Amino acid sequence: MNSNGRNLNIDDISRPNPYLPRFSDLLSRVSNFSIIESTLREGEQFANAFFDTAKKIEIAKALDDFGVEYIELTSPAASEQSRLDCIEICKLGLKAKILTHIRCHMDDAKIAVETGVDGVDIVIGTSSYLREFSHGKDMDYIANAATKVINFVKSKGIEVRFSSEDSFRSDLVDLLALYRTVDKLGVNRVGIADTVGCANPRQVYELVRTLRGVVSCDIECHFHNDTGCAIANAYAALEAGATHIDTSVLGIGERNGITPLGGFIARMYTANRDYNKSKYKLHMLRDLENLVADAVSVQVPFNNYITGYCAFTHKAGIHAKAILNNPSTYEILKPEDFGMTRYVSIGHRLTGWNAVKNRVEQLSLCLNDEQVKRVTAKIKELADIRPQSMEDVDNLLREYHYAVESGDVIKFENGLTGTNCVNGS
Amino acid sequence: MNSNGRNLNIDDISRPNPYLPRFSDLLSRVSNFSIIESTLREGEQFANAFFDTAKKIEIAKALDDFGVEYIELTSPAASEQSRLDCIEICKLGLKAKILTHIRCHMDDAKIAVETGVDGVDIVIGTSSYLREFSHGKDMDYIANAATKVINFVKSKGIEVRFSSEDSFRSDLVDLLALYRTVDKLGVNRVGIADTVGCANPRQVYELVRTLRGVVSCDIECHFHNDTGCAIANAYAALEAGATHIDTSVLGIGERNGITPLGGFIARMYTANRDYNKSKYKLHMLRDLENLVADAVSVQVPFNNYITGYCAFTHKAGIHAKAILNNPSTYEILKPEDFGMTRYVSIGHRLTGWNAVKNRVEQLSLCLNDEQVKRVTAKIKELADIRPQSMEDVDNLLREYHYAVESGDVIKFENGLTGTNCVNGS
Repeated sequence: MNSNGRNLNIDDISRPNPYLPRFSDLLSRVSNFSIIESTLREGEQFANAFFDTAKKIEIAKALDDFGVEYIELTSPAASEQSRLDCIEICKLGLKAKILTHIRCHMDDAKIAVETGVDGVDIVIGTSSYLREFSHGKDMDYIANAATKVINFVKSKGIEVRFSSEDSFRSDLVDLLALYRTVDKLGVNRVGIADTVGCANPRQVYELVRTLRGVVSCDIECHFHNDTGCAIANAYAALEAGATHIDTSVLGIGERNGITPLGGFIARMYTANRDYNKSKYKLHMLRDLENLVADAVSVQVPFNNYITGYCAFTHKAGIHAKAILNNPSTYEILKPEDFGMTRYVSIGHRLTGWNAVKNRVEQLSLCLNDEQVKRVTAKIKELADIRPQSMEDVDNLLREYHYAVESGDVIKFENGLTGTNCVNGS
Repeated sequence: MNSNGRNLNIDDISRPNPYLPRFSDLLSRVSNFSIIESTLREGEQFANAFFDTAKKIEIAKALDDFGVEYIELTSPAASEQSRLDCIEICKLGLKAKILTHIRCHMDDAKIAVETGVDGVDIVIGTSSYLREFSHGKDMDYIANAATKVINFVKSKGIEVRFSSEDSFRSDLVDLLALYRTVDKLGVNRVGIADTVGCANPRQVYELVRTLRGVVSCDIECHFHNDTGCAIANAYAALEAGATHIDTSVLGIGERNGITPLGGFIARMYTANRDYNKSKYKLHMLRDLENLVADAVSVQVPFNNYITGYCAFTHKAGIHAKAILNNPSTYEILKPEDFGMTRYVSIGHRLTGWNAVKNRVEQLSLCLNDEQVKRVTAKIKELADIRPQSMEDVDNLLREYHYAVESGDVIKFENGLTGTNCVNGS
């Protein structure tokens, strides 16, 4: 109940979502995108990753069940087992389309199209760095190689994407010319890749928006997370008209990885909860992350999006008070949509009497506001020495209630300091 | 050496930094900002956090040594020990200015100014959500309360910041009017806080840019990370003219936390390496993170920015090849600036012959390119069964070299498949 005596929750409040543009944005694909899930390609480039066939199949099935639109696999040209696994996963009959990711070489393309994939993702470095230090080819060579490989893949009747690598350090004019060439060849998608993980959202918005005016095909984006912008960049790309975003579970990939599936979902859910709830089985996220974390021998980070163990823990007193009045005051993600639960922590020195009052009511104890304020001061005093568990707090509340009932409260309150204040923001 | 026979590294290449605007941007503070480090305030709101006095002092000293401009402490009104700790830390004589963070109440302000802090950060919720479900006050009440508290703090001759809470769900006109009022009162900074962790970079840019035109004081920003934009939002805020960014070590705070110090540094270093190297002792970052991780009993996330154990590990063959030619092809952060080292992983099925050749040369073995390609195929074959350690690979290379020297190579190569191809992007 709020201060006006009404029971409200997020759904009752008929105000527009403040995180969406007030007017419709025809360019934006924030509510109309596809995920290209690359745990079994980019994720295999993570330092710890070694997936055997059974684990690949388990992960592919789980991703398909979650609802991703595409699953990308390591190039069948990488090793013999990679090729056999590609064939195996194509045979599973998943709803998700299966892609594989190859260099812009005819040798690789020939192996790829024979595996039964629904599409081939072609990549070549276009930045002056990569052209100089990696393959050493010029833009004419790249355009010719791309044309040959694209026409070959198209002749097999499957999807084809052409992506530059290190796109943000490539010459803009060269890049746009190349994309227009491959668009005219009829590729399904062109790809932009921030291979070094260093683009920022305004840069991404501008490049994608420019590209959107040059090609008519779909636009896929791939963002590394070295400087912490992989989720924000994906969002900015969709705002600018990109259609497909690459993710991996927990973001695993080269170095510290790419846009994590869970964090991306958190971001997109905020923009349009219903759209994401209808497309993806959000409650599966935690199991999916545990599956992959186990497979690559890492812990899910303590601060992981949505599923991190403290993602829905509220601690400071003024937060706790408002959350208890209306969860949407401090929560934009509904924990129950992800099979998670909210936890309001009260056994610490930042606690507030409103949160304690809520617990008193849950325990069916009878204390007035003045008494709750006094027992809150006692909790703070004890928590200044060491954190109090929920059990500690409950015992204290019961003891205090007993003392009030038995008239022995003066003795109990000995040593109270009277502070009753909390932090927030 | 690159294909033109020159030895190059990132410093030799006289091309402009592609991550900075091509023309100077008078609004941007990307190369002129201050950090308000809030591990000892926001960080104390992290579920696991309980810092005793000694630990607070240790963390404050480490932050000061690292070079942050401000250290923010929990309100002295939160508990008696919080107040005593505030006094204690103010007495340390650190280079960093000490702030404390209070509610917009005279009671809190009176306690705060007596602790010896260099400044007081005042916060009040301004969104309709918080006004309705938290404190229940209207905008006139907020402006009056703010005026009283600000004038009181100013009368003590110390810095004062006034911040709204949940700024992105506050009415824009109300918010700007309030900020203009407090700016005229002479606050040092106004603050914008994305308390629910849900703003996106383009939104941040627009709000900060608008505010920049309304107030003449400094602008501080505070971003929660629930939907993965806390670093990108901080960057967008600086681009739009914000001057101060709140961080905490590893991002610890309410729920999954705020802009992490390390990730923020990664982002800013990319925009201006020299500026950040001159301000902060970057090589201290790892120890600082370990100190805080230990204090709150968490593991540093496997994919942590800069210091995560795989942040500088390169795996896919085409990445490894280019990195060995010139690290800046796939690395925008120089590991040595942070006391870290690069690792090129070669014992896996995505390996490439260029990376293997580099290792052959490190071991002073004598193999020609054709031989390196053949032994690379052998590594892939073995790594299809299980990952190969560096020791495994080294042994294999030595055995192969011995077989070549002794003319017994045919037997050694039995079972080779001839695949020699890798992934990337």
